[in-house]
Amino acid sequence: MKKYIGVDIGGMSIKIGLVNEEGNLLAKTVVKTESDAESVIKTLGESLVRFLKENGLTEKDIEGVGIGCPGAITGATGVVEYSNNLGWKNVRLVDGLKKYLDAQYKISNDANVAALGEVIFGAAKGYSDVVMFTLGTGVGGGIIIDKKLYEGNESKGAELGHAVLVLGGEECTCGRKGCIEAYCSASALIRDTKRAMLADTESKMWEYANNDINNVNGRTAFAMARENDESAMKVVENYVMYLSESIMNYCNIFRPEAFVLGGGICGEGKFLIDKVVAYCEKRHYGYQGTPAVKIITATLGNDAGIIGAAALLV
Amino acid sequence: MKKYIGVDIGGMSIKIGLVNEEGNLLAKTVVKTESDAESVIKTLGESLVRFLKENGLTEKDIEGVGIGCPGAITGATGVVEYSNNLGWKNVRLVDGLKKYLDAQYKISNDANVAALGEVIFGAAKGYSDVVMFTLGTGVGGGIIIDKKLYEGNESKGAELGHAVLVLGGEECTCGRKGCIEAYCSASALIRDTKRAMLADTESKMWEYANNDINNVNGRTAFAMARENDESAMKVVENYVMYLSESIMNYCNIFRPEAFVLGGGICGEGKFLIDKVVAYCEKRHYGYQGTPAVKIITATLGNDAGIIGAAALLV
Repeated sequence: MKKYIGVDIGGMSIKIGLVNEEGNLLAKTVVKTESDAESVIKTLGESLVRFLKENGLTEKDIEGVGIGCPGAITGATGVVEYSNNLGWKNVRLVDGLKKYLDAQYKISNDANVAALGEVIFGAAKGYSDVVMFTLGTGVGGGIIIDKKLYEGNESKGAELGHAVLVLGGEECTCGRKGCIEAYCSASALIRDTKRAMLADTESKMWEYANNDINNVNGRTAFAMARENDESAMKVVENYVMYLSESIMNYCNIFRPEAFVLGGGICGEGKFLIDKVVAYCEKRHYGYQGTPAVKIITATLGNDAGIIGAAALLV
Repeated sequence: MKKYIGVDIGGMSIKIGLVNEEGNLLAKTVVKTESDAESVIKTLGESLVRFLKENGLTEKDIEGVGIGCPGAITGATGVVEYSNNLGWKNVRLVDGLKKYLDAQYKISNDANVAALGEVIFGAAKGYSDVVMFTLGTGVGGGIIIDKKLYEGNESKGAELGHAVLVLGGEECTCGRKGCIEAYCSASALIRDTKRAMLADTESKMWEYANNDINNVNGRTAFAMARENDESAMKVVENYVMYLSESIMNYCNIFRPEAFVLGGGICGEGKFLIDKVVAYCEKRHYGYQGTPAVKIITATLGNDAGIIGAAALLV
C-alpha cells in the first residue's frame, strides 16, 4: 500500500504524519514552529529524516511529502511568497527541504489542502466537484474540480473569503469592504457578539463572559443562543444568514456536488449546520430542475492538515 | 483543415454557420425562430441538412454541430430543461435534431459558449483560465479552466450573475436580493437611469429620451455622461463600481489569467472599459505578489454565438 508524508505547518507547531493510501494516519510527530524561516526549514528537514528513520522507512518507501502552509504559496516553485501567520516573505521552502530529504514535494495553502483532504479521504469522498469553507480566524476557501485542486494563476485563486457580499460593508483585512470573511470568520462573529452585548446589558452572554467583554470568543453567542438568550439568538441568526448567503453564491457559481464546512466554528455541530441547511433549502436557486448541493461538515478533524497535505500526492 | 457547424439559437432567429479550425466563418445562414419547440427542431434540422448541401458538404466533412442556446441545459443529455427566452421546458433538442442530421452534437448555454469562443478563437486566445461576463438583459457567465468549459453539476453552474453583491439589495429575477445581475445588467442600468432622471428633471438625459422615460435604454446614461451631464455621470460611475467590484470578486475566487467582458453594454467601448480597469487596478487584492488579471473586451462580435458554438467541438 502506498505511503505519503503529510506536513501541516502552523504558527505554533508543525505536525508531520505518515499516511497510507486509505487516508489512515499511521504515525505522527509534532515539532515547535521556530521564529524564523531558516530555522523552520532546518528543524523540519531534520525532523523529516528522523521521522522516516523512526518508522523504518527511507525516501524510496514514500510517494513524497505533501505540505499545507498558511499564506500565499506558488505550488509550482514551492515558494511561500507571503504568510502573515508565520511572518514569512519569499521563503524557498521546498528547495530548502530538499537539502535534507530528497523526495517529491507538493505544497499548497492550508485551506486548499483541507478541501482536498475532505474530497480524497473525508466527508466529500466520492464527489468530484466540491467547494469548501474553513471557518477560522479568517475564511479560507478550497475549490476541487474533477477531484483536483483548482488554485488559479500562480496558485493565487480560491480566496473565497475575499468576495464582497455586503457592498460597502464591514472593513476586511484585505483592504476591501464587505467581504465574506468580514461576516463569516470567527473574528467577525466575535465583533458582532460584542456589539450585541453592548446593546443589551441584560444578555446572558455577559455572565458567560464573566462580565468582561475581553473574554468573548467564537463560542459565546452560540452557547447562550442554546440557552435561548434573545440577543445571542439574533447574533447566531445573522451569522447563519451571512454564511448561508455566501454558500448559495458559491452554489450558483460552481454548482458543486457538495459544499463542505470546516474550521473551528463548525465545532458548533448540528446546532449550526441544521440552520444553514434549512436556510439554503428554502431559497434554492432558480427553477425546480437545478440540482441541490449537499452541505456537509468536514470529518477529518484534528489531523485534517496532515491527511489533506498527504492527499496532494494522491 | 477541420470544419465545424456552429448554431446560435436566439429568441428571434437562429444563426447557422460553417467555421474552420482557425475560427473563420466560411458561410452563414439565418432562419426565423418558430414559436414552439417542435417547429424549431424541424426548421433547424432541415436547415442544417440544406446548409451542408449548399456548401457541398456531407456530415462526414464536419467534426460535428455545436449549439449555443439560452436557458438551463444539460450538455450530457442534450436537453434544454428550461428557457425563459424561448418559452421551452424539457425539450430534447439534440435527440430531435439527430433525426434530421446524424452528427456529433455538443450543446451549452449561450453565455458559456460565448466565453469558450473568446478563449479558443477570440480576445482571450492563448489563455487557459478565463472568466467572462456577458452584459445583456441579464448577466451571463462563463468559466474556462484549462481551456475547457466548467459547467458544474448537470451543467447548472457558472451562474455568475446570481451571486449576491449587495446583501438585501435590489430584487433579482432569480428570487434572491442584491445579485450581480440586479446591478450590472442592462435592465438594472435602465432602472438606475430612470431613477436618476426622476430625481433630476434638468438632466440632459430627458432630452436624449425625447422627454419620455419609456424611451430610456442601456445607452441613455452613457451617451449623456459623455456630454458631462452630472446625473448621467453618476449613473455611469455607480455602474462601473458595481461591475468592477463584481469582477474583483471573481478575480479573487478564480485568479484567472484574463477576465473578458462581452454583451451589448460593452458597445460603450473604451469609455466603459478604461474606467473598469482603473477601478480594479487601484484596488488590487492583497499583497504585491498577486498576479494581475487582464481585463479585456470580447472581440468575436456579432457572430460570437456561431463561432463560440463551433468551439464546443474543438
